This record gives sequence, structure tokens and C-alpha cells, in this order.
Amino acid sequence: MNKKLFIPGPVDVRPKILEAMSTPMIGHRSKDATKLQKSISEKIQKLFYTKNPILLSTSSGTGLMEGSIRSLTAKKAVVFSVGAFGDRWYQIAKSNNIPVDYVPSEWGKPTLPETVDKYLSTGKYDVFTITHNETSTGLMNPIKEIAEVRKKYPDVLWLVDAVSSMGGVKIEVDKLGIDVCITSTQKAIGLPPGLSICSISEKALEHGKLVKNRGTYFDLLTLYKYVVKKPFQYPSTPTIPHMFALDKQLDYILNEEGQENRYARHLKMAKITRQWVKDNGFEMFPEAEYESNTVSAIKNTKGISVAELNKKIGEVGYVISNGYGDLKEKTFRIAHMADRKISELEKLLSILTETIKKL
Amino acid sequence: MNKKLFIPGPVDVRPKILEAMSTPMIGHRSKDATKLQKSISEKIQKLFYTKNPILLSTSSGTGLMEGSIRSLTAKKAVVFSVGAFGDRWYQIAKSNNIPVDYVPSEWGKPTLPETVDKYLSTGKYDVFTITHNETSTGLMNPIKEIAEVRKKYPDVLWLVDAVSSMGGVKIEVDKLGIDVCITSTQKAIGLPPGLSICSISEKALEHGKLVKNRGTYFDLLTLYKYVVKKPFQYPSTPTIPHMFALDKQLDYILNEEGQENRYARHLKMAKITRQWVKDNGFEMFPEAEYESNTVSAIKNTKGISVAELNKKIGEVGYVISNGYGDLKEKTFRIAHMADRKISELEKLLSILTETIKKL
Repeated sequence: MNKKLFIPGPVDVRPKILEAMSTPMIGHRSKDATKLQKSISEKIQKLFYTKNPILLSTSSGTGLMEGSIRSLTAKKAVVFSVGAFGDRWYQIAKSNNIPVDYVPSEWGKPTLPETVDKYLSTGKYDVFTITHNETSTGLMNPIKEIAEVRKKYPDVLWLVDAVSSMGGVKIEVDKLGIDVCITSTQKAIGLPPGLSICSISEKALEHGKLVKNRGTYFDLLTLYKYVVKKPFQYPSTPTIPHMFALDKQLDYILNEEGQENRYARHLKMAKITRQWVKDNGFEMFPEAEYESNTVSAIKNTKGISVAELNKKIGEVGYVISNGYGDLKEKTFRIAHMADRKISELEKLLSILTETIKKL
Repeated sequence: MNKKLFIPGPVDVRPKILEAMSTPMIGHRSKDATKLQKSISEKIQKLFYTKNPILLSTSSGTGLMEGSIRSLTAKKAVVFSVGAFGDRWYQIAKSNNIPVDYVPSEWGKPTLPETVDKYLSTGKYDVFTITHNETSTGLMNPIKEIAEVRKKYPDVLWLVDAVSSMGGVKIEVDKLGIDVCITSTQKAIGLPPGLSICSISEKALEHGKLVKNRGTYFDLLTLYKYVVKKPFQYPSTPTIPHMFALDKQLDYILNEEGQENRYARHLKMAKITRQWVKDNGFEMFPEAEYESNTVSAIKNTKGISVAELNKKIGEVGYVISNGYGDLKEKTFRIAHMADRKISELEKLLSILTETIKKL
């Protein structure tokens, strides 16, 4: 039995998009492949609200997180972390011997604009990273407010992990001034995992030239060279099936559902989930005002067995997520992202209500 | 029109395997995902003739080339190159600031065992790399003879790029003593691009501990930790569609076609192509005895326009490859790998014969 996935990626993929994964192969140096990558790039620019060039990488989002911090840090990076994926950015920097400072928030609390201001004002950094939507804690950072204080430091490159929000929440890359905005296909965009995507600013491309030993596979400057000099080509063979599927799904997002409708649907699903949390005597894990629109992390205030809950709902074809790491039984997470229908979420929530009563 | 691909990857994929790419998603931390990766690992061990653990990477083969040389070189590497993909290994080392020596052969000539002996005897190296099958020149290196001389230097780690041969040529990893053997799905294995695979020896895993700053995404020791400590799990979200497809294709290779039959078919296709070359007044590009069984590189001794040839056969639904880089018009390449049928190759060759007459 295929379970309906209410986990924060991989997500359920629409049948038409799954079908596109089966498109017969083409050569990756062919004109058709170039056309495909060009088409995707133009549509991703719309999704990201950016004029910056778009890079595709056959890897998970972690790959482009590594690529960006490694390709662009010439002096020192500062990682603002609000959970496991912020911590990953710090660990990536350490594993590459990149000078880095680590500024964690207590789990469930956001990165505050004043904290960013305080660190950037030291002049010690050429790069800072922000997790837009932290999958481990269901927290969405105040990106607009961070963008405001960042205006004082335009030369410090701003890298954003939007892996679990892009496509479900409006992120206006150019208006916010994000230098590298990273996402991945298996979250709010609604594709299988296997491909990650970023936009990169001219400023970042210029600054990257100062960095020695950027490596090969994830060197953003090399990726860029192929997109520009050999327009819409690739340094090594990309995952063509994902590209066929992504091109189709972007048409759906941009033209069939519409971006604003998509964001509104995600917000509505988040609000329905938050109401369910209140009605059922639980609490949201993140501080109020910072709850994610794509994944709700819920404090297990009633001390239920999350493992048992998931087992029971699994028997009727559903799966949610336990808490991340140390939060395994202390929280549970309901993802409501990608092409999930409101009616499907409501069905899940009513099953959860009934199942919890009987636990 | 979908062209029949006689290029050295991506290859045409059997419809059943393309279908498997459309399997509905599962969670990558689920028991089903663990079972899937375990099943693939066991089957890959058979394909590789090895007891070594198997690592899967969501990337092209270049990713694992970078991962292996970066994770394992503590002292100095020596790269023996017979073409563009050997050169890539050298460039990867340089881009990561890894101490490396570069020993190229003239294009079309193999890496000779005595050359390997000479370099390894200096005691300067802890890693050496060999391209088993060089896609750019259609050359297959004398891997058994290299394995013989290497026996004198068991402590020097041996990395092999078998990207365009594994699955089409018998490579007995344990018998040969290869420490890291790398391949990719879109060549002789017969899948779409997007996933790469390697085996890794205990000796290599132990030696890797000496290496600082191995990075994150391609750190082979991290990948290994997930396979062993969290059996058959992943550090970040993998390309699940490729895993469904690979599991099915390995059943086909191992149990339906049979490994020996598969190697025999590849050899037969190579011989048919070499005979065609002779019969049509061309010459093979690589030195005799070193021609690849999966891709034939042919000297354009008749000075035909390769671009024009490809255009003409494209009109009837076929595509071959021009020469690589500087060899663009000086050679052309016919790939005969993966699940290509002998009858299909014969059809292509007769079309080539007729088309060349009319050029």
C-alpha cells in the first residue's frame, strides 16, 4: 500500500509528473537538452522572482549548501542556525576548513534581525547564511526583517536555505537581496528527490573568484560558466528525468494553479493545522508568529506515543513525521506542502483526532 | 521523434525501467527505503564481484571521482590519464588543493603496467587512479596487467573509473584488488543519469581517517557511516526514482540476461563495429588490443563531415557521437552499451554505410 506522505519531503508527486520521469532519454549535449534547461531556468526565475542566473545540480539541497558556502567564502562565514539544517551548514563549513562562526538560536526561536545586525556590524564576515524554513523545528524565519537590516551590509553575501519553503511560500529573491537562494525538488515544488536548484547574484559570482580551491562538482562558478558560455549546458551528465518532470511541474505551478493561489493554499493548510493543534490540546513548537507554512512542528504536550500514532495511521494509509533528532518523541510534524489538497489534509487531521483518542 | 542513442551515455533505457522511474514516492527514512538500498547494495556487490560495501551517491560519476580522491589522499595522488576523463581526475585534485602528479598517455595509447610500476616504486604516493574505459578515446586499459604490478604496492590505494564499462565488461573488483571502483547509471548499466555508485575497501576506509577536510556531500567515510551504523540509510535525501529503477534493472542483468551473456553481447557488438570500420575504409582510434567493448572511437580517415553524417542519420532517427574536444571532426564514436540489441547495432551500421556513400 502506498501511504499518503505528510512528511516534510519526499512528498507525494502528481501522477502526470511521475509519468514525466519516464520520458525516453535524450543526449545531455543535444539541442533538446539545452532547450529543456533553458526553459526550466526561465520558469525558475519566475518562481524565485529573480533575474539572477539559475543553476541546477544533480544532488540533494545539501550539495548546493556545500557548494555555496565553499565557493563564496574568502574571509569568514557566519551561520545563523535555528535547527538541524542550520547546524548542517556549520558542519559543512567545518568539514571544508572554511573559517566560520556559529550563532544558534534556541530550538523553536527565530534568528532575530538584531542578531544578524550585531554580527554583520563587526565587519568580520563576507558571507552569512539563513535558514528560511527550518524543517526540523517547523520554524519560518522573519526573512523580510532580516533583509531590512542586511541593507546596511550589501557587500556581505547572503545565502538562504529555502529547501522546504520555495514553491509554497512567496520568496522574492531580488527584492529581498538574496545572493544565493537554494531549494530542492522534493519539498514544496512537488517532484521526487534528486535535483537541487539555486539562483546566484552577479556579486556572488564576482566574489567567488577570490576563493581558492572551490572543488569541482559543486563549484558554483564552474556551473555558471557552463550556463553562460555554453548556454544551458552542464559540466557533467545531469538527471534528465527530473528535468523533464520539473519543466512540466513549473508550468503547472506558474500557469495552472498560479503562484499566489499556491501560497494561499499553503497558508490555509498551515492555519487549518494550527487550529487542529489548539482544538486537540496540543501546542505549536515554534514561537508564535514564526510557524512554518509548509510543515507544522507540534509539541507533544499530551505525551502520546508518536511511534504508536504513526503505526496506527499507517494501517489506514497515512504517515506523518516524528520529531527531529532529540525531539523524536517530544514533538511530531505534519507537512502540508507541494500539491497536497486541503481536503486531504482535513481527512488526515480527522483520522489523527480519532486515533489519538484511542491511543 | 525520439532518436536511438548510439552515444556513450545517456543510453536508451528499456520501457520497463523507465516505468519504474515513475513509482510513487516513499519516505527516505522509511523501512521500505532501507530495504530498497539494501537490495541494491547486495546486487551491486554481485555486479562488481566484490564483498566491499557499496555507496550510492545522488550525483554524476564526477561526484564520486571527486569524493574518492578527496576523501582518501593523505600524502599524494598520481593520476594516470588516457584522455578527457583521466584529465578530469587531475583537474579535480588540483581544484581541491590535493597534492597530485599527472601522468598522461598520448591519446589512443593505454596506461602501461610498467609506467604504473615506475611511479608507484618511488614510494611518493598513497593513491593512484586509473581510467578503466576512457569514453573520450574509446580506449580500454589493461586492467589485469596493471593489477599484477600493483600487487607489489598493496598499501597504495587504487581508484578506478569504470563509469563507461561496468555492466558491459567483467570487472572483478576483489580479484583485481581495486579499492574504490566507481560507476554511473547512464552508461552500460542502462538507466537514466542521476545516480553514481562505488565500492570501497576496508583499507580505503581506514586510510581516509588520516585525511582532514574531506567535505560533506562526497565524504566517502560519512556515506559509509550511514550504510553501516544506520544500516542502508542516507545522509541526505537520495534520488529514490533511480533506486527503484536500478533495483529492477539489476534483477534483469543478474538473473534474466545473465552477467556472462551481457559481457558476451557487448564484446560481440564491439567486434561487429570493428569489422564495419575495417570494411568501410576507416581505422580504430585506439592502439590495437586496447579498443573498448562499450564505445568504439573511429579515426575519420576519409575526412567525412561528422556533423553532416549525424545530421543525415538524425533524419531517420539515429544519433552517434562526434569526437571528444579537439577530436571533434577527427574521430567519431559509436557506443554499443547497456541493453542495445545486436540487430539494432547492425541496422545503424548499414544506415551509416549508405549515408556515408552519399555524403
